[in-house]
Amino acid sequence: MVGAELAIEGEIGHHYARVLRSRIGEQLVVAATNGPHLAVVSAVDAKAGRIDVRIETAYPAHEARVRIVLIQGVAKGDKMDTIVQKAVEVGVMAVVAYEAQRSVVQLADKRSSKLARWEKIAESAASQAQRDVVPLIQAASSPGELTEVCRRLGVSTVLLLDEDETACGLRNALESAATDGAIGIAVGPEGGWDDTERLWFRDQLAAQAVTLGPRIFRTETAGLAAAAAVLYHHGELGG
Amino acid sequence: MVGAELAIEGEIGHHYARVLRSRIGEQLVVAATNGPHLAVVSAVDAKAGRIDVRIETAYPAHEARVRIVLIQGVAKGDKMDTIVQKAVEVGVMAVVAYEAQRSVVQLADKRSSKLARWEKIAESAASQAQRDVVPLIQAASSPGELTEVCRRLGVSTVLLLDEDETACGLRNALESAATDGAIGIAVGPEGGWDDTERLWFRDQLAAQAVTLGPRIFRTETAGLAAAAAVLYHHGELGG
Repeated sequence: MVGAELAIEGEIGHHYARVLRSRIGEQLVVAATNGPHLAVVSAVDAKAGRIDVRIETAYPAHEARVRIVLIQGVAKGDKMDTIVQKAVEVGVMAVVAYEAQRSVVQLADKRSSKLARWEKIAESAASQAQRDVVPLIQAASSPGELTEVCRRLGVSTVLLLDEDETACGLRNALESAATDGAIGIAVGPEGGWDDTERLWFRDQLAAQAVTLGPRIFRTETAGLAAAAAVLYHHGELGG
Repeated sequence: MVGAELAIEGEIGHHYARVLRSRIGEQLVVAATNGPHLAVVSAVDAKAGRIDVRIETAYPAHEARVRIVLIQGVAKGDKMDTIVQKAVEVGVMAVVAYEAQRSVVQLADKRSSKLARWEKIAESAASQAQRDVVPLIQAASSPGELTEVCRRLGVSTVLLLDEDETACGLRNALESAATDGAIGIAVGPEGGWDDTERLWFRDQLAAQAVTLGPRIFRTETAGLAAAAAVLYHHGELGG
């Protein structure tokens, strides 16, 4: 791969040659099937909408292969800020702020300003953590909306962290989880899950209730600990 | 075990019968070889310094079998408060506040007041997390003192989280770690480790430098993520 010359045409070629006006010698990252590579522009044909690049080195990919979506029951005060920051830092692909039955704070008319705030936090955390992408921040104000968001994000497994669950530990759940699609980790707000919500997660999202063991985690810590464990399980905390 | 009657004599019997003045019907937790049990006092002989108890039920043990000591390079501002709180919540047995070469804040003459503050935080976090014990908070102002503290805490393996390490991931390190003794997780302060410190950890504590992968963790998050992974590795996040 390294040393190879590639022609980039079509929409992307047009974008680089005409919109971004790439120049010879500029560097860019090329997403190849065997991972991202750093390439240098070796020719530009603005009229044809085409650039040629030479692959220089493998670009260190900072993203985990396992994709984790943190579904966080909206928590009080500035806890959500910390939750978003830490989740991005550990390596999730998206955070969904879910207005749970027992969420004391509802998003309501502040939804878009809150989302904008969390997006800013995610952007800054992604940059500090040297992520390659800025994780998405989404909101869901109802179970129905959460189902739709999970579908859009390609979530195929939902793990519902639940203090009332005693039988199924995280490891059991991960060992029997689907290997394609994203893993949703659902964390209740301070007051935990409501029974109707438990049923709904089970019936509508095929969620597996999971225990993190006998010690009780706060809502702002549970998702981070679980995400770290999921990454570790998949060899993504340093292999 | 359940239903068995036990006589508690000797020093402990004396303590319960004479110092605490136990009464019939009081409950206490008995540490049995097959785990803690809840027992009820069935007889008290203050003169002989002996109580009899009847074992009622297995008491849910909330402590992980793997013992983790977080060795935290002292961080700025109120970060240490959060670090202590979260470490206790996830399940470490001790936190050592270590004045690293690059720690901006030194403990100096505030050492005992800071320790007292962190002990309070640990106590409250342990209670909220339903821990059976309150983790120890220790301080070490020099490498020599840290060695001594690690010896006292029975640390047999030290993992030095280090951004400069690329070869050895957490999993490799855990798979080749000693199975007895406590696991020390050493996290640098904001500025990371100094080279002399790296050598010292290696030579004096036989520390293994470890990477958590290509994403960069803040000092207040690294220990928590690593501790969660170590617990998961040992089947202590819900099995």
